[in-house]
Amino acid sequence: MKKKPLILISNDDGIDADGIKALTKEIRKFAEVFVVAPHTQQSAVGHSITMADPIRVKKTLMFRDFYGYAVTGTPADSVKIGVHTLLKNRKIDLLISGINQGANTAINIIYSGTVSAATEGTILGIPSIAMSLTSYTYPDFSVAVKYAAKLAKIVIKNGLPKGTLLNVNVPAIKKVKGALLTKQGKSSWNDTYEIRQDPAKRQYYWLTGSMHKTDNSREYDVKAVDDGYISVTPIHYDLTDYLFHEKMKRWKL
Amino acid sequence: MKKKPLILISNDDGIDADGIKALTKEIRKFAEVFVVAPHTQQSAVGHSITMADPIRVKKTLMFRDFYGYAVTGTPADSVKIGVHTLLKNRKIDLLISGINQGANTAINIIYSGTVSAATEGTILGIPSIAMSLTSYTYPDFSVAVKYAAKLAKIVIKNGLPKGTLLNVNVPAIKKVKGALLTKQGKSSWNDTYEIRQDPAKRQYYWLTGSMHKTDNSREYDVKAVDDGYISVTPIHYDLTDYLFHEKMKRWKL
Repeated sequence: MKKKPLILISNDDGIDADGIKALTKEIRKFAEVFVVAPHTQQSAVGHSITMADPIRVKKTLMFRDFYGYAVTGTPADSVKIGVHTLLKNRKIDLLISGINQGANTAINIIYSGTVSAATEGTILGIPSIAMSLTSYTYPDFSVAVKYAAKLAKIVIKNGLPKGTLLNVNVPAIKKVKGALLTKQGKSSWNDTYEIRQDPAKRQYYWLTGSMHKTDNSREYDVKAVDDGYISVTPIHYDLTDYLFHEKMKRWKL
Repeated sequence: MKKKPLILISNDDGIDADGIKALTKEIRKFAEVFVVAPHTQQSAVGHSITMADPIRVKKTLMFRDFYGYAVTGTPADSVKIGVHTLLKNRKIDLLISGINQGANTAINIIYSGTVSAATEGTILGIPSIAMSLTSYTYPDFSVAVKYAAKLAKIVIKNGLPKGTLLNVNVPAIKKVKGALLTKQGKSSWNDTYEIRQDPAKRQYYWLTGSMHKTDNSREYDVKAVDDGYISVTPIHYDLTDYLFHEKMKRWKL
């Protein structure tokens, strides 16, 4: 690379999260970095955008002399406003969303704000990567940020097809065994609601549950990560079920 | 059908919206209907779920003697709590989300709360349909609810594959030309932010834009609807890009 690439970084844990700071520090070693992210935690927002309300943007000191932009909105809002307004007219070479704390494998992908930021980048024509560490508490981002830097260089070199992004999950362990090309797992949630009472004796509900793991092969993200590998899954937002579309031709609509 | 089927109805416009009331009245003609929907408007929430906060449920009079359940959450929350808690242990034959006011075609699908409610139904193993009318203001739901009833019977009879739902868009016109089997369009948004000043002279941003229509064939939802047809697109939430997955086997990850 002759000129430093311009890399946009966002997330869903908010601009103050440790994961986005660690990622920014690592990526700055070889790229010009611009950070635009939600000002507060936005987990499980899916691909939300804010249309009915105004959005505000605040320049925010992230560490030492480095400033990012905090947005009063969702991950998708942050990317949209970063690209359209804050970085207007500049070519962005790559977007990285993360490092998220918590796995974004299998069905979790569709609830994920981290993936949503990368999806919005893809919609706007930017090669994009979503990066997650598979633990809410593991404090060491070093493996994840080093792999993010490696993959960033690969993607800048090879490009990605229009409409396709990479969803990466890094096991929360000291020694990973390597990286595997994977598919979105089929595992789902056994979820339920706890029924509780507030001090005024009114009922309220709280979502709880556990992942029901059905993926037994490392070709799926869930199993690859469980076996100590980084999973790299190419995903897209063409939701058409082409297989069933063929079969539906027999239906009388 | 011997016994009346049990049909769960939800939406993203909120339990007071005209679209869900019109749908409920029509579907009650042949089915037992249970309504659980957000208590307020939830457009463009994508596939959000509420994990960090409690959720409350309120029995609400929708019309005459019919009660639904209003949920302090998103469309996906409403369906999840309806299935797990309110309808516990009952077999649900079908879920219909809508009638939404506003098109959910092409890229809009991934931002859609209406589609999200149907997706959550699918995740929970219920054959599900998302129904939208392609206008924010058109007040006549009669064509849409009649087609919803027709398609409901077809789906109850034929079933849907695990993980697949139907996304339906009805043109906001008096006389539709029929229904077409379609694919998710490739059209996208030309969006931007208006920069404004509040009374205290601080800047804020407001999202605005228009759909950039690139779909020229009725095999895509956008064009089918523009040409006066109801579009019926089978979609799924397996986001893996299998085509690029094959090509990525050459990458050194």
